[in-house]
Amino acid sequence: MKIVLAYSGGLDTTVAIKWLKETFNATVITVTVDVGQKDNFEDIEKRAYIAGAEKHYTIDAKKEFADKFLSYAVKMNGLYEDVYPLATALARPLIAQKVVEIAKKEGADAVAHGSTSKGNDQVRFDLAVKALYPEAKVIAPARIWKMTRETELQYAKEKGIPVKSESSKYSIDENLWGRSIEGDIISDPSIEVPEDAFEWTKRKTNEKLKLVIEFDKGIPVSVNNEKMDFVKLVQILNELAGSRGFGRIEHLENRVVGFKSREVYEAPAALVLIYSHKDLEKSTYSPLELRFKKVIDSQWSDLVYQGLWYEPLRETLELAGDNLNKWITGEVQVEIDGNGMRILGRKPKYSPFSEKVASYNKGWYPTDEMARGFIEIFGMHSLLTREVRSD
Amino acid sequence: MKIVLAYSGGLDTTVAIKWLKETFNATVITVTVDVGQKDNFEDIEKRAYIAGAEKHYTIDAKKEFADKFLSYAVKMNGLYEDVYPLATALARPLIAQKVVEIAKKEGADAVAHGSTSKGNDQVRFDLAVKALYPEAKVIAPARIWKMTRETELQYAKEKGIPVKSESSKYSIDENLWGRSIEGDIISDPSIEVPEDAFEWTKRKTNEKLKLVIEFDKGIPVSVNNEKMDFVKLVQILNELAGSRGFGRIEHLENRVVGFKSREVYEAPAALVLIYSHKDLEKSTYSPLELRFKKVIDSQWSDLVYQGLWYEPLRETLELAGDNLNKWITGEVQVEIDGNGMRILGRKPKYSPFSEKVASYNKGWYPTDEMARGFIEIFGMHSLLTREVRSD
Amino acid sequence: MKIVLAYSGGLDTTVAIKWLKETFNATVITVTVDVGQKDNFEDIEKRAYIAGAEKHYTIDAKKEFADKFLSYAVKMNGLYEDVYPLATALARPLIAQKVVEIAKKEGADAVAHGSTSKGNDQVRFDLAVKALYPEAKVIAPARIWKMTRETELQYAKEKGIPVKSESSKYSIDENLWGRSIEGDIISDPSIEVPEDAFEWTKRKTNEKLKLVIEFDKGIPVSVNNEKMDFVKLVQILNELAGSRGFGRIEHLENRVVGFKSREVYEAPAALVLIYSHKDLEKSTYSPLELRFKKVIDSQWSDLVYQGLWYEPLRETLELAGDNLNKWITGEVQVEIDGNGMRILGRKPKYSPFSEKVASYNKGWYPTDEMARGFIEIFGMHSLLTREVRSD
Amino acid sequence: MKIVLAYSGGLDTTVAIKWLKETFNATVITVTVDVGQKDNFEDIEKRAYIAGAEKHYTIDAKKEFADKFLSYAVKMNGLYEDVYPLATALARPLIAQKVVEIAKKEGADAVAHGSTSKGNDQVRFDLAVKALYPEAKVIAPARIWKMTRETELQYAKEKGIPVKSESSKYSIDENLWGRSIEGDIISDPSIEVPEDAFEWTKRKTNEKLKLVIEFDKGIPVSVNNEKMDFVKLVQILNELAGSRGFGRIEHLENRVVGFKSREVYEAPAALVLIYSHKDLEKSTYSPLELRFKKVIDSQWSDLVYQGLWYEPLRETLELAGDNLNKWITGEVQVEIDGNGMRILGRKPKYSPFSEKVASYNKGWYPTDEMARGFIEIFGMHSLLTREVRSD
Repeated sequence: MKIVLAYSGGLDTTVAIKWLKETFNATVITVTVDVGQKDNFEDIEKRAYIAGAEKHYTIDAKKEFADKFLSYAVKMNGLYEDVYPLATALARPLIAQKVVEIAKKEGADAVAHGSTSKGNDQVRFDLAVKALYPEAKVIAPARIWKMTRETELQYAKEKGIPVKSESSKYSIDENLWGRSIEGDIISDPSIEVPEDAFEWTKRKTNEKLKLVIEFDKGIPVSVNNEKMDFVKLVQILNELAGSRGFGRIEHLENRVVGFKSREVYEAPAALVLIYSHKDLEKSTYSPLELRFKKVIDSQWSDLVYQGLWYEPLRETLELAGDNLNKWITGEVQVEIDGNGMRILGRKPKYSPFSEKVASYNKGWYPTDEMARGFIEIFGMHSLLTREVRSD
Repeated sequence: MKIVLAYSGGLDTTVAIKWLKETFNATVITVTVDVGQKDNFEDIEKRAYIAGAEKHYTIDAKKEFADKFLSYAVKMNGLYEDVYPLATALARPLIAQKVVEIAKKEGADAVAHGSTSKGNDQVRFDLAVKALYPEAKVIAPARIWKMTRETELQYAKEKGIPVKSESSKYSIDENLWGRSIEGDIISDPSIEVPEDAFEWTKRKTNEKLKLVIEFDKGIPVSVNNEKMDFVKLVQILNELAGSRGFGRIEHLENRVVGFKSREVYEAPAALVLIYSHKDLEKSTYSPLELRFKKVIDSQWSDLVYQGLWYEPLRETLELAGDNLNKWITGEVQVEIDGNGMRILGRKPKYSPFSEKVASYNKGWYPTDEMARGFIEIFGMHSLLTREVRSD
Repeated sequence: MKIVLAYSGGLDTTVAIKWLKETFNATVITVTVDVGQKDNFEDIEKRAYIAGAEKHYTIDAKKEFADKFLSYAVKMNGLYEDVYPLATALARPLIAQKVVEIAKKEGADAVAHGSTSKGNDQVRFDLAVKALYPEAKVIAPARIWKMTRETELQYAKEKGIPVKSESSKYSIDENLWGRSIEGDIISDPSIEVPEDAFEWTKRKTNEKLKLVIEFDKGIPVSVNNEKMDFVKLVQILNELAGSRGFGRIEHLENRVVGFKSREVYEAPAALVLIYSHKDLEKSTYSPLELRFKKVIDSQWSDLVYQGLWYEPLRETLELAGDNLNKWITGEVQVEIDGNGMRILGRKPKYSPFSEKVASYNKGWYPTDEMARGFIEIFGMHSLLTREVRSD
Repeated sequence: MKIVLAYSGGLDTTVAIKWLKETFNATVITVTVDVGQKDNFEDIEKRAYIAGAEKHYTIDAKKEFADKFLSYAVKMNGLYEDVYPLATALARPLIAQKVVEIAKKEGADAVAHGSTSKGNDQVRFDLAVKALYPEAKVIAPARIWKMTRETELQYAKEKGIPVKSESSKYSIDENLWGRSIEGDIISDPSIEVPEDAFEWTKRKTNEKLKLVIEFDKGIPVSVNNEKMDFVKLVQILNELAGSRGFGRIEHLENRVVGFKSREVYEAPAALVLIYSHKDLEKSTYSPLELRFKKVIDSQWSDLVYQGLWYEPLRETLELAGDNLNKWITGEVQVEIDGNGMRILGRKPKYSPFSEKVASYNKGWYPTDEMARGFIEIFGMHSLLTREVRSD
């Protein structure tokens, strides 16, 4: 049997290399996908081989991640339950796709990943593999082996498996779009997350940060008038906004697998971009478009979070989103100050705002009779309905 | 003819006293409703009499405003287009109701208000009066007289009408729940609002502010463990949070009368309470409840903003909101830091969060087969649909 | 071990009595709940005892079914995917509740039901038992034993289990609210359902049927001016409308367990009542209420269908529905003609319809200027947005 | 002044020719747009000239109406408030567009139409002209002149204006997609519409009618295996289904101008096509697509009804609708019987229905453990939330 394993380099998947070999008498090929996590990919490769991988692939997918996934995260204002920018959720289908590509190329029978049976990631990974490579078996060792962290460490020691010296406190998942922090210490939703859990949002200065973000058809293209590609733009915003301590998120999140858990994230660039984008949308859309967009944004975020990347509705939602984002061009001025971000102003290219119409001092003015006509007819259904009930 | 005028004490309504008398050969009775604006009500009364009012009423409606209107603003997370806490919009139906009560008591034929034909307030005021006192004529002098600020001042001078020395730059509407700032200087949405426009949110200290907000069935009842009535609680939060510079809002708002205008608000207490309340709701509701609540919250905010206070649907939305808020009891810890507010933790009384279920280290754990069963069936509709399209 | 089995009297559950006894070395108590199916409950009881039941309960729950379940089916216009009146889905939580009551009374350790692993009913039954009696084990023999109809018949013969002589073609589930028909012959969605599948809707006359249905607060209370209780009213409408051939339903239905299946139903009374009720609602509600009701109706139907009877949102949806149904009083005249039903007219007690307002010949008439004021302001957001995009 | 008048040939617009000439001292050019109404266009032209038109245009827009408007009426299942197929509403923007084309070509200063200030059509017409020809003045004589039918007839007589001998009872608007019937006799919503109001749906036979409708990407392309263009297909279905008496619609409709009115329509082809199309959609879409489609369908119908044809959201809704309709290919068998229509079966090209998956007797079968895994996790949020509330 030949198994291709999505390999992060962490304890679980390193132990999994050996465990898969032994349990399934298999050949294991490891694939590490670079979606912007701050890892040493050479060390990861070495660790894979020492743990028993027959072959290892490192794939740089940062540009693809930005262009095909984060672009929609911005266009669709991707915030699960209004707060979580979906960093991990967005990376999973891309990682699965890359792993499947290798699995097909290598003629593997199975694809494996490190998710547990309590997490969302198993849903995202399993469904992506089922969609792209239905013939392959999907194996999630951590759903089967029932080891704890302690027994995993013991197993690693016994089998001579190298283990990355990790923070013993937190379990981290990281990519361009955000960093998620887990670990029993912070799983209690009533307790403030300790400062040492954060890495991207350590405040280095109290100085206010002013930024001008420019969008072209919904995609961010420059920061402070400097054009840059999307990957670099995200990296720079993560640093700039993160250095003010901006970008921390925590909430009690509804997992797709049936329960609430306290989740903690850092995502400075994602928040700056989504909040700015939303402001430009509000400044551009008709009220009906704005309300419709809110509906499709929520639904898109739910699909992505729930591992339904391959649900056909996603394509239709994105097509509708693309069509609306055709008009989201212009710049937004923002200020980061403490853990808050404020929009200061915006210059949307296609805004229906008209000084002539809006100003109290000039231009268009309805007469008293026109205003009364509007108000009477606008409110009539409501008042007629109300009246008959109070008779 | 006897006219009861909703009287703010400002230039427009002071001029209106005289204008109504002359235009309609009428007796004018003025009513000033105290909904928490920082005004000198004795001065206002004097001004009314000097300008020609036959009788003046000052009505303290702060408690009613908090108990009957702001309570729903919190329970329904009232934020028009996701940002505006509806301060002015909420006060209008209450002021109209008080003015109608006086009009009926005084046997007046007409009710008058100071709104123009470009604003939302005319809709709110006209429709409330039509609902409560359909027999009365509604007169909006500013929709008829076509005076500018300059000709109004000229008119006042000629007629010996006293004018409050106002900031010449901004036009303010204020109550317990917020302060709105208008004026041509800030109507340009591309320009940062100048510091002098703000009054409630001048930063006095850079110190972080930690607060514990306690809710009982959706209503805030204590701050930092000190129980207090709703009016006082709002006042205190306005001061505390405002002193950090927190509570500024600006956006390009979709008016009910057909166009976008740049609007600027200060509402520290409203934002602190609504954000805290939302967090407690998310920590308490099932995912389906949470998504449903978002729908009814948006619709409630739209109704209130658009002057449809008497649309019968509001009652049903509030009843649904009340039923869900039965479970919104507990406290939320928040931190105000610069212009940002962060939730630090929460202790909801009725949260389905369960450490036993959520923890990776203990309790409930689905087997591999159960997890696979869930994932397969959960994703099956999507994958079957996708598959048949790619054949 | 003591097991309480929801017992229909059919092949599956009769075999299950024996199988449960043998497999779990258990005592089996059977419960048959009368929700209006046309069965001989004495025969069923006899069969249970012969097959090995230690004790048998027959519970008449028709009135409770009508008053607590069908009342909401009408008030919430319960039609899954716009067509299926939810007969089986509504009965399942009631049957589960009755079975749990017996299980608690008898001190049973487990509750069993006859559903398979491909159907919706297992979800409805399992979740209801988990909600009401979380300590009990839920056993679904047909999910475990992997018998086909043939091996079941073989098993019955070997064990001396009596088998009801059923139609060999179709599998039927029946209650007051409808009859569902399954069986491989009709599972092909491209083929017309053969006439012999239908029982309630055999056309006996081509005569048109005129009915007057009266509602009181959303509940049907009389037919053709004859007051009757809800159970009888449903029975009579099933007969009257069914005798014209009205009430057949078929569609390709999305099951909760992940796939589409062709489903066939007969539900004459349900359709007559829901269509009449909807007409009265439309004649009574404001447009905003009507659109909101449509949203909560769909969501209610989805919850009921998907076995989420105990999802807390249901209570809030029903409360909102109750509040709106307060005004659904009056009568509706309908005509059944062939397989169609047409509303002829209605007399709603609380309709905002006003001849004075609606008539072209009298009463209220907006002036040209008022009409223009309304139209201009009503369409302005749309036209301003459009204009800026075509520049 | 030069005015282009949308001319139907009826009393109102014939009188309007003269009235416009006299009132505005204007030259009047008349335009009659053929959207499938059964009129004698030569007679109409003659009448226009006699009444004083300087020039008359007759424009055959049937094909454009079908291809650009009715195609979306089918794709978006256009049914206002679930019943009205929008025939008149859909024709108005097309008529306005044609009239504007002539107005621009003729260099006219104004565009006129026959709508009153109580109807929906004025909104549709005014807004379309504002969108397409903002420089033109829009004149609606019937909003200004305050004539009744009697004074109009008197005016016609005095001025020598020819009047079409119309049914004195009803006012009709007709096009390919439907016939609407108004008139005081039927405006009472409690009274059955008299038989003489109907023309397209007089029952000529009691024979059942079986039809096979074939769709290609959402567009109907053949009836009973005979390919035909859309215009002809609609005409044939109107005749075939109408001859059974099928296609009558009546309800208490919420007008955009603030009140309910009883409306009566005939639209056999529209109903056959929309019901068939909906069945094919349900047989093809994933459940999430199906629910999303219902939302955009309703919103599209509301926009069209309310005269918001030029609201930019329409384009996005249609784009989403087009993308989903890509898969709506296949045939639907229907039976018309009395005033009912029943779907008998369907052969969708892209249905995810799979006999292997759906059949109880073969193929895919979840194990007991998989089924339990699905049910437990699927229902867990609901049950955990419920549990904590009943403590």
